[in-house]
Amino acid sequence: VRASTRDDALALDAGDSLAHVRTRFVLPPSVIYLDGNSLGALPRGVTERVHDTIEREWGHDLISSWNEHGWWDAPRRIGARLARFIGAEAGEVVVSDSTSVNLYKLLHAAISNRAERSVLLTERHGFPTDRYVIDSVARERGLTVEACEPGAVLARIDERVAVVALTHVDYRTGRRHDLEAVTATAHEAGALVVWDLCHSVGAMPLDVDRAGVDYAVGCTYKYLNGGPGAPAFAFVAHRHQARFAQPIAGWHGHARPFAMEEAYAPAAGASRLLTGTPPILSLVALEAALGAFEGVDLHDVRAKSVALSEWFITLVDERVPEATVVSPRDAGDRGSHVSVAHPSAYAVVQALAARGVIGDYREPDVMRFGVAPLYTRFVDVWDAVDRLVEVLRTQEWRRPEHQIRRTVT
Amino acid sequence: VRASTRDDALALDAGDSLAHVRTRFVLPPSVIYLDGNSLGALPRGVTERVHDTIEREWGHDLISSWNEHGWWDAPRRIGARLARFIGAEAGEVVVSDSTSVNLYKLLHAAISNRAERSVLLTERHGFPTDRYVIDSVARERGLTVEACEPGAVLARIDERVAVVALTHVDYRTGRRHDLEAVTATAHEAGALVVWDLCHSVGAMPLDVDRAGVDYAVGCTYKYLNGGPGAPAFAFVAHRHQARFAQPIAGWHGHARPFAMEEAYAPAAGASRLLTGTPPILSLVALEAALGAFEGVDLHDVRAKSVALSEWFITLVDERVPEATVVSPRDAGDRGSHVSVAHPSAYAVVQALAARGVIGDYREPDVMRFGVAPLYTRFVDVWDAVDRLVEVLRTQEWRRPEHQIRRTVT
Repeated sequence: VRASTRDDALALDAGDSLAHVRTRFVLPPSVIYLDGNSLGALPRGVTERVHDTIEREWGHDLISSWNEHGWWDAPRRIGARLARFIGAEAGEVVVSDSTSVNLYKLLHAAISNRAERSVLLTERHGFPTDRYVIDSVARERGLTVEACEPGAVLARIDERVAVVALTHVDYRTGRRHDLEAVTATAHEAGALVVWDLCHSVGAMPLDVDRAGVDYAVGCTYKYLNGGPGAPAFAFVAHRHQARFAQPIAGWHGHARPFAMEEAYAPAAGASRLLTGTPPILSLVALEAALGAFEGVDLHDVRAKSVALSEWFITLVDERVPEATVVSPRDAGDRGSHVSVAHPSAYAVVQALAARGVIGDYREPDVMRFGVAPLYTRFVDVWDAVDRLVEVLRTQEWRRPEHQIRRTVT
Repeated sequence: VRASTRDDALALDAGDSLAHVRTRFVLPPSVIYLDGNSLGALPRGVTERVHDTIEREWGHDLISSWNEHGWWDAPRRIGARLARFIGAEAGEVVVSDSTSVNLYKLLHAAISNRAERSVLLTERHGFPTDRYVIDSVARERGLTVEACEPGAVLARIDERVAVVALTHVDYRTGRRHDLEAVTATAHEAGALVVWDLCHSVGAMPLDVDRAGVDYAVGCTYKYLNGGPGAPAFAFVAHRHQARFAQPIAGWHGHARPFAMEEAYAPAAGASRLLTGTPPILSLVALEAALGAFEGVDLHDVRAKSVALSEWFITLVDERVPEATVVSPRDAGDRGSHVSVAHPSAYAVVQALAARGVIGDYREPDVMRFGVAPLYTRFVDVWDAVDRLVEVLRTQEWRRPEHQIRRTVT
């Protein structure tokens, strides 16, 4: 087979039906951004929407904006808009708080509905913050956490398990669980599932209702491009809504919030997941950001994600013998980022950044490169790998400045 | 005594040492805004700061902004800046999540440090969302909630009480607890205190460290003008920091967040109150908003708050016999809003709004008027009462459009 070329990349871009969507984003010139799996790029329109919310809604219309400009309904309205991204219905999704706080609420809700069972099943090597919440809730509720290897989850589900809590796509390796199979197996054993969709939502179609998912959370600042720390979503299937409870009871989740009743009466539906006043500026930024997906079919997004990822893997295989692809080789087992191991991964990531290629590093030796189908081009992948080749050939990653550890990696 | 006049108001404004601070705010023309106790007005500089964060930091510098532009440290940095508003030290305050979520965390923390006790003491008629959280945490931890009349709190504190949880200034009446006396009495009985400072922070000097307060929360969108739903603060006294735990454990509260350890190891200090990724756009808006307090002494703020409130009460007493001031008459027992009862309070508030006077309504018959010393003028108070007189004289509040109940009141 002939070696791949930059012209191949340009040809792939020329045939890309989503190529035009890139113009919906503000992207810095001379940067190849492959970290949209951590912080999505800025969609056009966000600046203007937030400006309007500050100057006209807050500054001019002041308190009346809670009614007049839909601030009060924002968590439900944006939740309804997010529903299509995960295959849910309006009324099953709200947006508010962080992923961790929402996971805390949903784990409590799920456990309450399986009070007779003793095990909270999760995986090893998952995103640590999920694990901290899982461990904390289990301790509070008197459950035992069993954390198995990701590949062993199906075999470990049995009738002792109250809840299976997993991240759909692994933050480090990009490994993807079979959401449908795990959910079905959990249900056969009488357990409930809580899925963390942080690393899949916006990068592929999801269908939580068809899969029968019970509860799910996910963040909105990765492939959904909602902005730094944009509030997370939480999903509760309709069939659980009549009888679920979460412990952080607040007035935004009350059935009659302005009656100012002393007793908590939970709102119907996913609204009862709401607690306190949500951060409106961050919420409207997210709402505006979702405009970048206007008219975009998530199946096309997934197809391009797979094509970009395979292009990346092909190029690393061909051109970078020093590095090892540690993400699954089968696209069906992968999310939308590709992880590559190198003994000096940290310094290589820094050296790449100095050459304008932005990926990120994860302990202990992983370089992550996310492809964001709405704005990543095939030629970006070519150029990124090309610079990786150069960084390794010149050994410029050995320079002292690339060894300095920063606060946030 | 002669009746008060508008010229008296103008004279009071002429002698106001804080009058110049009003220019630091964007205020709509022809509106008298007396709802800063619900949503503070927009400080100048916020729009520009948020714009810069979106366009330059997010849009151009992307993921590197977590380091380069201090996003990661924002909850601690802004917490340190808020410390002076409550008389705390840097390292005792973080900003993140909502007041309700923070209250949930702190109640758990406090109860854990009084595990042998059985009662969570609070007041009746407090802000309901606090009560929902109090009831929920008590239920989870097996405590009994005792809710007494606000005036009876001191007498009800005894050795059964684990935690006293109160709102410093009552949202409805403006009644203010004696924070020092309650804290001291609780400590004498071996109990801990958790204060909600939502309706006092930014309107008066507070000194939680001198009073020996254990834990406190408060919101930042009222007198601190942080914007709609701006993240709340949480305070933990230094002496508790070595041994307190909160259940919503997340990576932002981990001692080594980027080591991605599977076991939770709480960060030192108030940082362990942090959970997930905070909403950066809302955080930077708050940070910019605090600039309005530059060079402002909180004692001067309080002095003006008292003067404005007394001016308001004087005018209502003189000119509005149909309404009854239900806030305490003694300024020492009051916060920075004055509540007035009228049998048709809801419609009167709507009719006032139609005349450009923005107060708000609280069940069952209360009109609230907040004075915000940074931007409320004495003449605003005169004009507001003058229009209240007109609304009642003409009975225009009886118009059908003023009876329509809106979602948010």
